[in-house]
Amino acid sequence: MTVGIDDIRAAALRISPYVHRTPVLSSTLINLQAGCEIVFKCENLQKAGAFKARGAHNAVVQLNEAQRHAGVATHSSGNHAGALALAASHFHMPAYIVMPENSSATKVAAVRAYGGEITFCEPTQAARESALDKLVARTGAAFIPPYDHPDIIAGQGTAVLELTEQLPQAPDFLLTPVGGGGLLAGSAIACKSVWPQTLVIGAEPVDADDAQRSFRTGQWHPQCTSVTVADGLRTALGILNFSILRRQVDDILIASDEAILAAMRLVWTHMKLVVETSAAVGLAVVMSHPEYFANQRVVIVLSGGNVDIDRLPW
Amino acid sequence: MTVGIDDIRAAALRISPYVHRTPVLSSTLINLQAGCEIVFKCENLQKAGAFKARGAHNAVVQLNEAQRHAGVATHSSGNHAGALALAASHFHMPAYIVMPENSSATKVAAVRAYGGEITFCEPTQAARESALDKLVARTGAAFIPPYDHPDIIAGQGTAVLELTEQLPQAPDFLLTPVGGGGLLAGSAIACKSVWPQTLVIGAEPVDADDAQRSFRTGQWHPQCTSVTVADGLRTALGILNFSILRRQVDDILIASDEAILAAMRLVWTHMKLVVETSAAVGLAVVMSHPEYFANQRVVIVLSGGNVDIDRLPW
Repeated sequence: MTVGIDDIRAAALRISPYVHRTPVLSSTLINLQAGCEIVFKCENLQKAGAFKARGAHNAVVQLNEAQRHAGVATHSSGNHAGALALAASHFHMPAYIVMPENSSATKVAAVRAYGGEITFCEPTQAARESALDKLVARTGAAFIPPYDHPDIIAGQGTAVLELTEQLPQAPDFLLTPVGGGGLLAGSAIACKSVWPQTLVIGAEPVDADDAQRSFRTGQWHPQCTSVTVADGLRTALGILNFSILRRQVDDILIASDEAILAAMRLVWTHMKLVVETSAAVGLAVVMSHPEYFANQRVVIVLSGGNVDIDRLPW
Repeated sequence: MTVGIDDIRAAALRISPYVHRTPVLSSTLINLQAGCEIVFKCENLQKAGAFKARGAHNAVVQLNEAQRHAGVATHSSGNHAGALALAASHFHMPAYIVMPENSSATKVAAVRAYGGEITFCEPTQAARESALDKLVARTGAAFIPPYDHPDIIAGQGTAVLELTEQLPQAPDFLLTPVGGGGLLAGSAIACKSVWPQTLVIGAEPVDADDAQRSFRTGQWHPQCTSVTVADGLRTALGILNFSILRRQVDDILIASDEAILAAMRLVWTHMKLVVETSAAVGLAVVMSHPEYFANQRVVIVLSGGNVDIDRLPW
């Protein structure tokens, strides 16, 4: 089961009526502080506030009539939940979302706004999977996984495919956050196909560095628990994504929670963009490795902007 | 002294190397709540975080060699200060900025980041003007006014000129905030020239409604003091701008501070954009007059995003 550039091109065509073409933006003051020339691909401005809308739509659009009638289901405490509810709403199909009972109020509200039907469960992986199994058995809904699936990877890859049309020339580096790995895998495939010389780097929190450990040892080391502030990246790296990363990614670099929060503040202050902690990890990695990126042309994917504005992390 | 579409076209050409072409964005969830179809023109993503960069560059680029040597000066507690310092920095000329001693730390930091030289004064109009007069006498710097001048109005008008190239068809309504009136005047001239059927509406806080009173009575009523949360709009309407508004603007509508803060939260939450209070007045007016805008196609200019993220107004 592999994913190629043709799958990403097909996904881009398929999802184009449903997702935004997101802008690329830059800031002179951030460039001065970072010592390199950065372009941000703004997936925080994507539908439902994150790149996740791309993969979710790519999966949902391909369902047949009978599947659409039964609807879709997933478990997620985060952006995949809202993205799937939105994608289902375009086809008037039910979206059954299992969410841990400690999910953020903002993300629960987003799922409801798009018409998703929420089942709350205890905040453990076992409870989530068990609740999902029951839901699927009862409803016949199709399970749409959050990251470790070819349709999802191809959908997430469309952000960087779009980027290759937006920039006049290849950058030296492309950075995306890595949690489950769907965005990084899809981005790497798209990037290496169009810009083979560009180095593709995964950006990960120090406290959730399973992708770096897996990448550097060649052995899949999914983490069990993590308390990084970058809540979207606490997920373990997917096994399919790991196999793609090994072939297509050049390195994985980490940044501390402190660096992530500082980078998040820089983006809010100078870019005037609301980004969530997980989206700031790319810039945090660049600011934490100045020698690595000095004077280089760097693209950073800002992955999402779903933040509770009454509970900011600073 | 008038301003026409040719002046705005000339300004657009003149400033294009120095300013961003800002994106237009929309949100399904905001449209659902507002009951109309809104496109936002994102000048919060402009250089130095506000549309003010357009007018300041249009004035500065036209200075001759001797004037550039002497530099530029203004008094401002807000976005014009940062915009002018940025514009001056492109030509390595000094920018002397008089700021009231109670100016926000964020705005002071922005002026310094762009190399502006700040003179603090007491927070009164008289103290500002007197400090500026002394500065100009000492340095020979050219005074670049914040809003009531043809070059500034033509520069601010370039945002809507750009918008007319970005949208496939004319909207029913165009709304911009109105403080000193430079943005509204320039926007109205650009809009009526390209889209004569579009109604142009100024959006103003209830507590700083001098533009509405002036517009409706036909008599210039500059306000003396205002405590609206929309600090960028406390300024009195300029007399040149008033004469343009009378001819080119269709109406001026007001919104309460409560509605402004609610609209600001909507933009942060659903658009993932950092906007300042003054930038939210357009949406606040739309949400406060649902019968007026029902099912219409509406463009709202988001004027700026310079907010102290440690001191949010909610």
